[in-house]
Amino acid sequence: MKPHVGFIGLGLIGLPMARHVLHAGFPLTVFNRTRSKAESLEKQGARVASSPGEAAAEADVLVTVVSDPPALEEVMLGEKGAAEGLRAGSTWVDCSTVSPALERKLTATLEKRGVETLDAPITGGTWGAEKGELVFMVGGKAAVLEKMRPVFQAMGKQIFLMGDHGSGQATKLGLNLIMAATLGVFCEAISLVARAGIDRERMFELIQSSMARAGIIDVKAPLIFKGDFSPSFPLRLMHKDLGLALELGNQLHVPMPIAAATREVFNATRALGHSDADYSVIAKFFEQPA
Amino acid sequence: MKPHVGFIGLGLIGLPMARHVLHAGFPLTVFNRTRSKAESLEKQGARVASSPGEAAAEADVLVTVVSDPPALEEVMLGEKGAAEGLRAGSTWVDCSTVSPALERKLTATLEKRGVETLDAPITGGTWGAEKGELVFMVGGKAAVLEKMRPVFQAMGKQIFLMGDHGSGQATKLGLNLIMAATLGVFCEAISLVARAGIDRERMFELIQSSMARAGIIDVKAPLIFKGDFSPSFPLRLMHKDLGLALELGNQLHVPMPIAAATREVFNATRALGHSDADYSVIAKFFEQPA
Repeated sequence: MKPHVGFIGLGLIGLPMARHVLHAGFPLTVFNRTRSKAESLEKQGARVASSPGEAAAEADVLVTVVSDPPALEEVMLGEKGAAEGLRAGSTWVDCSTVSPALERKLTATLEKRGVETLDAPITGGTWGAEKGELVFMVGGKAAVLEKMRPVFQAMGKQIFLMGDHGSGQATKLGLNLIMAATLGVFCEAISLVARAGIDRERMFELIQSSMARAGIIDVKAPLIFKGDFSPSFPLRLMHKDLGLALELGNQLHVPMPIAAATREVFNATRALGHSDADYSVIAKFFEQPA
Repeated sequence: MKPHVGFIGLGLIGLPMARHVLHAGFPLTVFNRTRSKAESLEKQGARVASSPGEAAAEADVLVTVVSDPPALEEVMLGEKGAAEGLRAGSTWVDCSTVSPALERKLTATLEKRGVETLDAPITGGTWGAEKGELVFMVGGKAAVLEKMRPVFQAMGKQIFLMGDHGSGQATKLGLNLIMAATLGVFCEAISLVARAGIDRERMFELIQSSMARAGIIDVKAPLIFKGDFSPSFPLRLMHKDLGLALELGNQLHVPMPIAAATREVFNATRALGHSDADYSVIAKFFEQPA
């Protein structure tokens, strides 16, 4: 019999992930702060819990996908939180992006209660989540990952074990940093050449013929040129991840000047009022009137 | 009959370019400050001039590939410089990377003497130059580019007309900026995760499975991991190009915080004594003892 999955966090990424879990035949109980987002899953046979703790109590495997460290602490340790609901022998899989330190802190709390944990943040965006093609970067024990593999396979296509608890998070922060800065410098370069009289789409074509080509540029440039900033990954969340990456770099004494400059671009773009747009909206920071 | 080509600058990129021109059957006269670099071409039938002006005087088409703006001003406007050698009706093709403003200044000087000009900086590195697979980004008149197409085709595979005089240079500065910053943030991220206990090659594998993948990372990461910093494109030249990009951005009022931070990484790595190594040596800036 398939393990019962509890699922907390039905945002842009979480909702399609939970749908894949349900369609793969796992019994599913979901919780989301805004209950209406759970309705489509309820119609398809999921149970909707009234608290994180209730979702956790029914789960052999609890998956969380929430937006930031305070949200994770709230659903895990808050009133009727998931931590007190989880039974000994169950497993918590956290697909949120938070700090490695928070992940280790929550792991220490849960291990005392006989709960195994994995941090397993994801990349691939809403598109990858919808298609079931997410990539998981996992921190924790290999044996626990093996046990969880069927659940991961329902939601994604590739699973990388990166190291011990927190390693998934450190990996994710590094990965998002590369994407944010690459897109940021693309926006700088494209604004520079446009201001010098060069056609932006011609520049993009050239970039794609060169070593400057990048996955994130391929995906975001056409949307930037169209002015389509509907959120695949909101600016406020990438801004948060850049802050977490810098915090980790400063704890570990890794100098990160490019990350620091990139974070300020994201910060300035939030100041322009674009927090909920896709993070490619940073293009607007560079394109203000001269 | 094929036009006579003059070629000035036989460095890492220029030498294989000139060889392709010769092998394509163009009569060739070369000049290089260090004469010994011309010897292999001389054995294959090229004439070696004793000054830039002498190389220019024999040329229907003069190609220059020198390292920076002062070097270009010297070979063009210095004593026995190319500008006074060039005949009316000839064409100057500059494949160096300099500022758009310098390109336009030299163009103005030469047009008065009946000389057509194109700025045509290149991307593809020594590998592209050796294989004849360079990409040219051209500023100038379309008709002049058409006349020069056979010469370009001897040296490269793709030719992008970007706009009027100087547009090739502005494009190149934008392109190199993207490559420098993408590699820079890759080095930051890889150092961050390595310090957090994660295997660098595992991280690279993950990056290649994600939207963070980039051409420049694919090429440079394996060399960085091996500690092979033999120069394909030296640090000092990329550092120079970042300075030119920032100068242009400040003239045009395009904010470039990521470029500014990236330039300081390159500056700091030069301070460590690595000016002549490949620019991927910036990895060492992030990897100093904690």
